[in-house]
Amino acid sequence: MKRIMIAAAALSAATAGLALAQQKPEAEIRYRQSVMNVIGRAMGPMGAMAQGKAPFNAAVAQKNSALVETMLALPWDSFGPGTDKGAPTKADLKIWKETAKFRQGSEATQKAAASLAAAAKTGDEGKFKAAFGELGKTCKSCHEDFQLKQFRN
Amino acid sequence: MKRIMIAAAALSAATAGLALAQQKPEAEIRYRQSVMNVIGRAMGPMGAMAQGKAPFNAAVAQKNSALVETMLALPWDSFGPGTDKGAPTKADLKIWKETAKFRQGSEATQKAAASLAAAAKTGDEGKFKAAFGELGKTCKSCHEDFQLKQFRN
Repeated sequence: MKRIMIAAAALSAATAGLALAQQKPEAEIRYRQSVMNVIGRAMGPMGAMAQGKAPFNAAVAQKNSALVETMLALPWDSFGPGTDKGAPTKADLKIWKETAKFRQGSEATQKAAASLAAAAKTGDEGKFKAAFGELGKTCKSCHEDFQLKQFRN
Repeated sequence: MKRIMIAAAALSAATAGLALAQQKPEAEIRYRQSVMNVIGRAMGPMGAMAQGKAPFNAAVAQKNSALVETMLALPWDSFGPGTDKGAPTKADLKIWKETAKFRQGSEATQKAAASLAAAAKTGDEGKFKAAFGELGKTCKSCHEDFQLKQFRN
């Protein structure tokens, strides 16, 4: 809590109204990696079900798809100007050059995540699998375009 | 997406039904740190408002308190047996000795987060501030008991 209070105190009144106030580059890099890590964990059980490696469980699908939808709203502002370096990252420098394309990708994946959450709510396995496949395509496309294979400094 | 698919494939059918399937200790440590990082970021703007360093904004309070409530459901299973080491961590070894007390703390903070989210929904600044203070107490208490000041290996 002490750390939280210090972090809170560091936020000026001007920026506190923003959901993602600009912080130091290393903090932004860590934040977006944290968000992606939480997303990856939530994708795991859904991927197993989508591939038939685990039996379909509607509750698991709903819980994890809702979490992915929530989390996918968070990381994009942490790719702002000046956050291209500052800590080891797999973020390709193209992110800061092809910003329109990157934004397009972020919007596509958020839309696909919303569709997956809606599909999961129906409890229909087929709809879930189809929507999961669509979300997977948006993940893959953006990672292929903008994620390096190795960490860079 | 490739990483996600690999992670998904690694999950056995038996464990995929669990929201938080047991993974390697370093993955569990990274996951719980990721979750705490996302929580910390969401606490920032709320702390600023609670301390009067930023004007109260009901939408910001609602959004961030809902996120904290969602996130606070996630990290606890990643403190399971065998996850006391494996990567740099501030987790005190007491977590694995005083498990009942740790669980009690995790339940208290989740309850406080739910109360904060409910208070934020009312749009009442006083209720928000009071509930934020209560949540802060649960954070502080558990961090004092179970979080080291420095990372250990």
